[in-house]
Amino acid sequence: MCEIESAIGMFDSGIGGLTVMQRVMERLPNEQLIYFGDTARFPYGDKSPEVVRCYTRENAKFLIQQGIKALVIACNTSSAFSFKRLQEEMSIPLVDVIGPGAALAATKTRTGHIAVIGTEGTISSGAYQHALAAICPGKIRVTAIACPLFAPLVEEGFSDHAATHLIAEEYLGFLRSTDVDTLLLGCTHYPMLYSAIKKVIADHVALVDSATACAEALAQTLHCHAISRTTAAIHPHRYFVSYNPSKFCTHASAFLSIPPQEVSLVAS
Amino acid sequence: MCEIESAIGMFDSGIGGLTVMQRVMERLPNEQLIYFGDTARFPYGDKSPEVVRCYTRENAKFLIQQGIKALVIACNTSSAFSFKRLQEEMSIPLVDVIGPGAALAATKTRTGHIAVIGTEGTISSGAYQHALAAICPGKIRVTAIACPLFAPLVEEGFSDHAATHLIAEEYLGFLRSTDVDTLLLGCTHYPMLYSAIKKVIADHVALVDSATACAEALAQTLHCHAISRTTAAIHPHRYFVSYNPSKFCTHASAFLSIPPQEVSLVAS
Repeated sequence: MCEIESAIGMFDSGIGGLTVMQRVMERLPNEQLIYFGDTARFPYGDKSPEVVRCYTRENAKFLIQQGIKALVIACNTSSAFSFKRLQEEMSIPLVDVIGPGAALAATKTRTGHIAVIGTEGTISSGAYQHALAAICPGKIRVTAIACPLFAPLVEEGFSDHAATHLIAEEYLGFLRSTDVDTLLLGCTHYPMLYSAIKKVIADHVALVDSATACAEALAQTLHCHAISRTTAAIHPHRYFVSYNPSKFCTHASAFLSIPPQEVSLVAS
Repeated sequence: MCEIESAIGMFDSGIGGLTVMQRVMERLPNEQLIYFGDTARFPYGDKSPEVVRCYTRENAKFLIQQGIKALVIACNTSSAFSFKRLQEEMSIPLVDVIGPGAALAATKTRTGHIAVIGTEGTISSGAYQHALAAICPGKIRVTAIACPLFAPLVEEGFSDHAATHLIAEEYLGFLRSTDVDTLLLGCTHYPMLYSAIKKVIADHVALVDSATACAEALAQTLHCHAISRTTAAIHPHRYFVSYNPSKFCTHASAFLSIPPQEVSLVAS
């Protein structure tokens, strides 16, 4: 198989990474994508770094076996714990969500005060805090907030439920009395909570979605490596999960403009 | 070590099993207990049967290495998928939460219509449904309801939050228009949601907690095997988790009348 005809692999702990997939489909419409959702082991957000690294390596191995030309870690927790190590081990280009998301947020802030929200794992890893500090040393203050219930609420279809609005207020309401002007959505599930989050923060705060930034970074990476497709892929996108394909199919339609027609089950 | 001086081991995916531990401490105050919370891999409720069986076996092995005389599976999902297989493999008595919980619920119902709530794994396994059918063949109707957000809400300290009341209404509100008179709490986390659940079901519905039934079954099992302690244990209870001992310590005080003084971290 010619490299340029290979697909792009991407994975997440569940369905959240589909927000990245949607952005990649919009930015790179010629590419074939292969998505793996590790639904048997969701969520990664409250797991130990060692466990997340082990899962990440297994997921990458599975997608490489499918013959991909580039890999996207479409999961913030995996990116936080595993990106650098995995990059050293891999022979194909690797793109994550944290570096591109932090870079985009840094261009938006005027007050220099950015809030980052994510899973307990992503926040406690300090990955976004370090990435922002590296981009603008000494110029950016970061308020990092773990929101461990957000991803389960999205996975269970409660994205726009009144209960989710109350939980958003609990996690984020205090930001209204700060000078935070940029809120970085540090979990691929969170774009689904856009309206719930908008309701509890000040109107002028910009919401930055790592998925958009990640899709742009992927486009640049493919271009640099001269592996972009210029004509539409022959094969359709493919979807794999490690548990409950029918539930994945049901919820995926909320994330994707063209829902999956077939989802295959693989052993985790 | 004399067998009668050994401890009783018990495990759960997180802190939920502490509801069982509290009941066991009340029912068997002389016994020393060793608790393991597999917090690195919480929750088990939406994982595949194979993954849960693997975790259950690993947890049992760890506790047996501590020199226990009996083991309690203080996790409904583990009980649902693993009890029978583990029982065949073990040389010490094993007690779960499902059989005792189902038996207690069967004694309470007058209409013969019991609702069982649990994780997605517990409910889809059909374990409670089968246990109730075996106790009273053809006499009990079961309405089984998966409540996948309940355990995460408890783990995150939202047990009595307004958001939890709304989610309880979403899951259970329809029961008010049925003849269900007994609601079986098929997850060790759920006794912490007692007041939230009470608010959304009819006053006359009896809430049955598997933890109480499990403690009674354990007392009978120890008695039958002549391994009960008649004097107070010399050693204090011991606590192990696979991730974040400090978070476990913080939340444990809501579950236990005497909170743990020390929690040890072990590799999962």
